[in-house]
Amino acid sequence: MSEKIGFIGLGAMGGPMAANLARAGFALTVLDLDPAKVARLADLGANTADSPAAAARAADKTIVMVETTAQAEAVVLGADGIASGATEGHTVVCMSTIDPLAARAMHDRLAADGIRFLDAPVSGGTVRAEAGELSIIAGGEDAVFEDCRLAFEAMSANLFHVGGVGQGLAMKLANNLLIQVGTVAVAEAMVLGAKAGLDPETMFEVIRVSTGASFAFETRVPRILSGDFAPGGTVDISYKDMELETGFAKQLGVPLLVSNVAQQVYEMAKGAGYNKEDGAAVVKLYEKLAGIELGPR
Amino acid sequence: MSEKIGFIGLGAMGGPMAANLARAGFALTVLDLDPAKVARLADLGANTADSPAAAARAADKTIVMVETTAQAEAVVLGADGIASGATEGHTVVCMSTIDPLAARAMHDRLAADGIRFLDAPVSGGTVRAEAGELSIIAGGEDAVFEDCRLAFEAMSANLFHVGGVGQGLAMKLANNLLIQVGTVAVAEAMVLGAKAGLDPETMFEVIRVSTGASFAFETRVPRILSGDFAPGGTVDISYKDMELETGFAKQLGVPLLVSNVAQQVYEMAKGAGYNKEDGAAVVKLYEKLAGIELGPR
Amino acid sequence: MSEKIGFIGLGAMGGPMAANLARAGFALTVLDLDPAKVARLADLGANTADSPAAAARAADKTIVMVETTAQAEAVVLGADGIASGATEGHTVVCMSTIDPLAARAMHDRLAADGIRFLDAPVSGGTVRAEAGELSIIAGGEDAVFEDCRLAFEAMSANLFHVGGVGQGLAMKLANNLLIQVGTVAVAEAMVLGAKAGLDPETMFEVIRVSTGASFAFETRVPRILSGDFAPGGTVDISYKDMELETGFAKQLGVPLLVSNVAQQVYEMAKGAGYNKEDGAAVVKLYEKLAGIELGPR
Amino acid sequence: MSEKIGFIGLGAMGGPMAANLARAGFALTVLDLDPAKVARLADLGANTADSPAAAARAADKTIVMVETTAQAEAVVLGADGIASGATEGHTVVCMSTIDPLAARAMHDRLAADGIRFLDAPVSGGTVRAEAGELSIIAGGEDAVFEDCRLAFEAMSANLFHVGGVGQGLAMKLANNLLIQVGTVAVAEAMVLGAKAGLDPETMFEVIRVSTGASFAFETRVPRILSGDFAPGGTVDISYKDMELETGFAKQLGVPLLVSNVAQQVYEMAKGAGYNKEDGAAVVKLYEKLAGIELGPR
Repeated sequence: MSEKIGFIGLGAMGGPMAANLARAGFALTVLDLDPAKVARLADLGANTADSPAAAARAADKTIVMVETTAQAEAVVLGADGIASGATEGHTVVCMSTIDPLAARAMHDRLAADGIRFLDAPVSGGTVRAEAGELSIIAGGEDAVFEDCRLAFEAMSANLFHVGGVGQGLAMKLANNLLIQVGTVAVAEAMVLGAKAGLDPETMFEVIRVSTGASFAFETRVPRILSGDFAPGGTVDISYKDMELETGFAKQLGVPLLVSNVAQQVYEMAKGAGYNKEDGAAVVKLYEKLAGIELGPR
Repeated sequence: MSEKIGFIGLGAMGGPMAANLARAGFALTVLDLDPAKVARLADLGANTADSPAAAARAADKTIVMVETTAQAEAVVLGADGIASGATEGHTVVCMSTIDPLAARAMHDRLAADGIRFLDAPVSGGTVRAEAGELSIIAGGEDAVFEDCRLAFEAMSANLFHVGGVGQGLAMKLANNLLIQVGTVAVAEAMVLGAKAGLDPETMFEVIRVSTGASFAFETRVPRILSGDFAPGGTVDISYKDMELETGFAKQLGVPLLVSNVAQQVYEMAKGAGYNKEDGAAVVKLYEKLAGIELGPR
Repeated sequence: MSEKIGFIGLGAMGGPMAANLARAGFALTVLDLDPAKVARLADLGANTADSPAAAARAADKTIVMVETTAQAEAVVLGADGIASGATEGHTVVCMSTIDPLAARAMHDRLAADGIRFLDAPVSGGTVRAEAGELSIIAGGEDAVFEDCRLAFEAMSANLFHVGGVGQGLAMKLANNLLIQVGTVAVAEAMVLGAKAGLDPETMFEVIRVSTGASFAFETRVPRILSGDFAPGGTVDISYKDMELETGFAKQLGVPLLVSNVAQQVYEMAKGAGYNKEDGAAVVKLYEKLAGIELGPR
Repeated sequence: MSEKIGFIGLGAMGGPMAANLARAGFALTVLDLDPAKVARLADLGANTADSPAAAARAADKTIVMVETTAQAEAVVLGADGIASGATEGHTVVCMSTIDPLAARAMHDRLAADGIRFLDAPVSGGTVRAEAGELSIIAGGEDAVFEDCRLAFEAMSANLFHVGGVGQGLAMKLANNLLIQVGTVAVAEAMVLGAKAGLDPETMFEVIRVSTGASFAFETRVPRILSGDFAPGGTVDISYKDMELETGFAKQLGVPLLVSNVAQQVYEMAKGAGYNKEDGAAVVKLYEKLAGIELGPR
């Protein structure tokens, strides 16, 4: 396969995603601030670049997998950014979870130079990233999406093309809102039941097959019961996602009553020192206030 | 089968539950304020009583399926209540969803007279009540539960015995909290996505197989998309349940941030006139404020 | 003055209120579960009764100053309650802060026997109770209110007659909602400013003369700055009041978004162990989560 | 007086503020996108500039009175911004209400060029702006503040210097949080009382002299009673302020439970179409849901 891909950002998600592209035979040019992460990809045959512009010059499309909206904007539009290295027909694939309206604005800026843009955030965590089994939820033109299909298939088991530019991100935020509010609701329900004397294991067995069931319940409660708060996704990351969700809603004029309160629960969990633990750790906040523990702590 | 059962309350749930008992061959004695409902059971061979005490005198156990905590207390302990008709060894089976602490108090009052008590709230709605496929979540002593097993099996496909007196109710409230908060979160997520331009049908297809999935999502969104708000459980009933949940938490000293806000969303939905519609109708509140509709309205 | 008054409940508020009546020359008959409290009034010349009925028999009007709605109902309508001792024309004056709809129901029950009812909750705390400078906010018929005026003037500096039965309580709850939500807002604003580096004393000096000023701010902030959380009104009492406020709103169908969340903040403050401290102690919850202290702790 | 002042932004607040400086004899150079607003100042003797840089070149200090953080950053640091026209020793006075951390960042950028920075947001509305009776709450070095004192005194009746750079803004946000949460609490209390049958006028008379009193109550309730929702400060402006408050708290890690919910109430008021009315119009949201009106609507 001779397709040439630039890849910016080799962190906990980007590292294994790029590795899967390298193994699938794509001609990669990678960039990260951490030389150790770059070296790992070089060992898999990737070239290295010293700026996003250089990575873009060496490729037909460039994938951006950084942490924040501001970082993505800097990588794409900043000094020595992708835009200054890419030529007409190049495709920027933003796989970071960022503000959908910022993504749309980037698209519009790039379009003026004939550069194409796709937002394609992922879901599934490090384990699935390594297995090449992420979900990818893309927004953008059909032709651009199809042009990225092979690369996506090297990283993903579930591929969705849900609409125009920014709508991959909008879908991801709507989905994440549900698991994050769901996690807080799980904490409230489990602490309420346990305080009433219910065995938390019994609660898990009954509710998982009842109308209260959810992906959040199914995945959070085993951690709560076993006391395993090693992340998955940290409280910090959930909080950052919720800020994208509530911030996006504010820009669109959609009131989010329950979601904004849930975000404040994550804020309290951060203040209580659980920020680097799994999102399920919000339960500890409720446990402390109710004077009860649902598992080994 | 010669087991004799009293049955108080033949409403939307109690009616079909009693009918299933009658068809299964139990010797029923029924009571309801509405003569038409009583007549329907009489047609199935049930005897009728003119007071809870009379129903209890004619039976070994009496099932209570009324609406509110106050009604249950009146039926059990009031003038001509079950307690005044029952003899030692009689079993009161409270299948209404009521305050767990009130249930425990009833148990204690009855125990002084040697009358046994089981709380056994149900889940599943009218359709499953008719099919004899309810979930029953019971709290109480093992022997009492086993003594009710045959009757429960005539009404239920899923039978749980989760702990001591009051804990069937506690489990039901913890479970319901999750679907009710989940319903509000679904409304927030769907309106946010639609306002961002996503196709609501596409949202349904993607999120149902993603981390935002839940029973609430799976069952509420088709109603939202089709505009079918015929109840299932009404906003009024969800609100009453949430009042039991938040009230129970207050008695136990468990803070419920997200749940109390979700209850106020239901309060607003009532104020906006959706009280007799399905709980999914909370979405209309958000739709109005965001200036958008997700289905035929 | 020969007016004969029964007085039930000689606690932190009732004690000094009754004492002021005794000193003003009213012929008192008092009742409390605590003999020491009764003795204190006997020293001021009060007679004692062994039941609410007995107190009512000895008087023309009976003042009720107990803690909860349930206690008030028991004292008025229970076995040996005021209703069973009072004769036609007697006046029951409920000065406890209780559910307005329960007050109205008591009125209706008593009216059938020709017994009159006034709700007259107070505001001002122990210090003003002792000084005879409480605010009294009464609801009921004009003639009944006027008939109580002399007694009220012995306890009060501010006397309001605001409407029919139950409306004294409704006014008190509306007023209290404002100071209680205001207290939580004060905690949020002060911790935010201090975390930003502002001197809390400077905040007090500036905001008290600015648009953020309130009675809550003026009275809570000096406690926050000096670390004096000796009650005034405890977190527990504020919480109980908020439960009356939010519960009353639920009965009337009025959504209270901010107030229900504020009540949960008090719930968390109780869970954190501040329940017997002054309501201003909610600030400590925010201080802990923000990692800062605004005064000696 | 020969002090030379640049003034950028002649809107509802900036216009009368600049006019007072002109009348007090300062040598003004003004800039606004609206020629009519510029003309009004020119009539008072002000010079005009065609860019912030030009205004700065003609002055010793430049006042910025634009609407948003982004506008302030553009005016100060953008192309042809103040920074590109100002020389060492120049003072930038940011009187807009913007993000305190953005203000601090501007200060740091300007300091590298020897340009001084003061944040000095105002309080009081258009009427007090015209009367020269605003409150000014400044943050920055003593010497810089003193150097601005004469100019401030021409616009202000209350002058506070509360701390270092950014702390004028922090104080303003803390103060505003109180009036904005207070306004929502006023709406909840008034609608609750009125729904209970209380006369809203009587509520005003009683609560304004009771523990629920506040500046918010004193100023909002007369509008609610008379139906006068002509702004003062609009719902939109209150919402923007709350976004600064809650956003600032998020950057500092301070949970704001009640304030974030109050912001969502303003969001709903915007969605209901009250965005250009006075902040007191949030009451209409509650009125609609409770089915009651507290004044002419």
